[in-house]
Amino acid sequence: MVISPDTVELNFTREEYAARLFKTRKAMQQADLDSLLITDPANMAWLTGYDGWSFYVHQCVIVTLESEPIWFGRGIDANGAKRTTYLSHENIIEYPDHYVQSDDRHPMDFLCEILESKGLSSHSIGVEMDNYYFTAAAYASLVRNLPNANFKDCKNLVHWQRSVKSEQELSYMRKAGKIVEVMHQRIRETIHPGLRKHELVAEIYDAGLRGIPEYGGDYPAIVPLLPSGADASASHLTWNDKPMQSGEGTFFEIAGVYKRYHCPLSRTVFLGKPDQKFLDSEKAVLEGMEAGLEKAKAGNYCEDIAIAFFDVLEKHGIIKDSRTGYSIGLSYPPDWGEHTMSLRKGDKTVMKEGMTFHFMTGLWLDDWGLEITESLAIGANGPELLSSVPRELVVIS
Amino acid sequence: MVISPDTVELNFTREEYAARLFKTRKAMQQADLDSLLITDPANMAWLTGYDGWSFYVHQCVIVTLESEPIWFGRGIDANGAKRTTYLSHENIIEYPDHYVQSDDRHPMDFLCEILESKGLSSHSIGVEMDNYYFTAAAYASLVRNLPNANFKDCKNLVHWQRSVKSEQELSYMRKAGKIVEVMHQRIRETIHPGLRKHELVAEIYDAGLRGIPEYGGDYPAIVPLLPSGADASASHLTWNDKPMQSGEGTFFEIAGVYKRYHCPLSRTVFLGKPDQKFLDSEKAVLEGMEAGLEKAKAGNYCEDIAIAFFDVLEKHGIIKDSRTGYSIGLSYPPDWGEHTMSLRKGDKTVMKEGMTFHFMTGLWLDDWGLEITESLAIGANGPELLSSVPRELVVIS
Repeated sequence: MVISPDTVELNFTREEYAARLFKTRKAMQQADLDSLLITDPANMAWLTGYDGWSFYVHQCVIVTLESEPIWFGRGIDANGAKRTTYLSHENIIEYPDHYVQSDDRHPMDFLCEILESKGLSSHSIGVEMDNYYFTAAAYASLVRNLPNANFKDCKNLVHWQRSVKSEQELSYMRKAGKIVEVMHQRIRETIHPGLRKHELVAEIYDAGLRGIPEYGGDYPAIVPLLPSGADASASHLTWNDKPMQSGEGTFFEIAGVYKRYHCPLSRTVFLGKPDQKFLDSEKAVLEGMEAGLEKAKAGNYCEDIAIAFFDVLEKHGIIKDSRTGYSIGLSYPPDWGEHTMSLRKGDKTVMKEGMTFHFMTGLWLDDWGLEITESLAIGANGPELLSSVPRELVVIS
Repeated sequence: MVISPDTVELNFTREEYAARLFKTRKAMQQADLDSLLITDPANMAWLTGYDGWSFYVHQCVIVTLESEPIWFGRGIDANGAKRTTYLSHENIIEYPDHYVQSDDRHPMDFLCEILESKGLSSHSIGVEMDNYYFTAAAYASLVRNLPNANFKDCKNLVHWQRSVKSEQELSYMRKAGKIVEVMHQRIRETIHPGLRKHELVAEIYDAGLRGIPEYGGDYPAIVPLLPSGADASASHLTWNDKPMQSGEGTFFEIAGVYKRYHCPLSRTVFLGKPDQKFLDSEKAVLEGMEAGLEKAKAGNYCEDIAIAFFDVLEKHGIIKDSRTGYSIGLSYPPDWGEHTMSLRKGDKTVMKEGMTFHFMTGLWLDDWGLEITESLAIGANGPELLSSVPRELVVIS
């Protein structure tokens, strides 16, 4: 069986990939960059289609102003690049296995030889300085090996190109939205006091993976977070195998995922009769969300949503000092946020139609927590909610 | 409800945590380090008990030669540190939320102020240069803000302390081994031509999370990898929602996980009558594994296992140029390997009782692949297999 770029089944048209490359190059020129070394797996996928759990070893996509991008990675992953990208095979370059997790050599040393051989070694090269997959050692190797290159932090340049979603991307996110609906539905149907938490996690994964009859789910960039009682005062705890207790609230921060596109959505379930503080906070959050959603339209600033939400919370005597949302879309672990826009005071990015956000209105208090959130796309006149899950504190009595 | 370090339920005794700290400090002294900034989530957990999916923002544990370690992280994660570590609350230090994913300031800028105030700013400080969660930007912030500090790559110093497992750690890994047994059992029971792959993934997660009646499973540091047919020529593809086909082989690279301790184990399933090449390779791999396992005992080098395995493969005309295993244990995404020892030529680490490895004997050929692997603990006279799954190519006809 011959594998060739022509027979690869891509998630987007070749025209869409070409358009992405075009706007990336425009941004490169504005930033005075001759080339980019892209290490963020979501950016690699967005530019080339590459998809695989190989980001635990060093890899990148090299983008220049003219030629086809180059995938660079470990030898045993080159076939994965051949099977998931539109790149011609000559632009899939592999490094030998003895570079993997070695004390003596670094994969970026090998990359530098490639850059040298391609005449890119005295370029102005953009690197993703604060990306998980661009370690301090990776950067040190580049600087050591290419003394004539001018490395610059490209400041999430590709991330920013991803902020306005195409129609195809939006359709994937709506599918992810359908998936997160069945996940929350499953929680409502199965949760009860005495159910051991890992069993509930099994239900959540089952719903998220089975998806709906037409299409199945993908893995989320963050595993389900579902702390109960006082553990819900912490924002990022996962699970244990203990029974769910009556008299406790549990928030469920989960996402539906389709072809790596995410629709995160949180709800909180209280088993038994909720304390007044839950009911009061629910009221404040829901009212605040309405106020925030009214601001979620093209032309407003990101911070407008946050300010509207925080103002209502304050009226109810609640101070939230963490951001209340972020841009979402295509993601790989460890984060489903896009690391560009945040819904917080001071973020004066002007929202455009087709931008997508997780309106993350969670409250983490001294010894309890509440999350009721929405994911949305910015429209001309208001937001489109990406999924439809009853917006309420779920009480199972 | 008062949260205090005394009421936290830890996964290990306080004595075990103290012993870990003791040997880490000994290694620090040998490396001439006054303090360590530990960013690897598994190292943070191993040292302090900290557990949470918060590694997508900057955080670390500061270890000095004397005082209790310090957890440093985002404000909304501080409660998570209070609920999962033995640290006194004064040693849980949070940074404000406007440092999160900001273009204007970096969490490490804030950390530097803390280090300054604690008198550590002119220390010899070990950093994990090639860790995913220690980005080039994080390092640049440290160097910029603390001109009098002497930063050194600590070369996986804490990772190395983790290589010999305690009895409690081994017991967790054996539990993970029991979990991976039921996962493979489930695959055998449910796989058939026509089953859509995402539905099979749902079965795998269900088995891995439900675990066995006594204890439930945790999330794996790598999601299930299960490419079929020609996709199995690539080592790290995940899944889609298409039906399984007769006449194709699919490898399943999965892990059972208990309290973040992993037991990875791969098997390959062929639907229908396998080609001769599958049967020949199965024979070679199984024979090679026997040869490798014979070398898996205290006193031998890591490379001895690899050489014995590769020698048998070569006799069968198969050349494998990727490493054939690595140290395993406590892990967080994106990798369940420990980044210390590799089973490959040139790794002359002397194996000790209680070290644990994934003997990763996978073959990824031009247009197909085969994985039949084992996870094991090194014993005085030979290996202890951490799980018991029939070692064979599974044929479902």
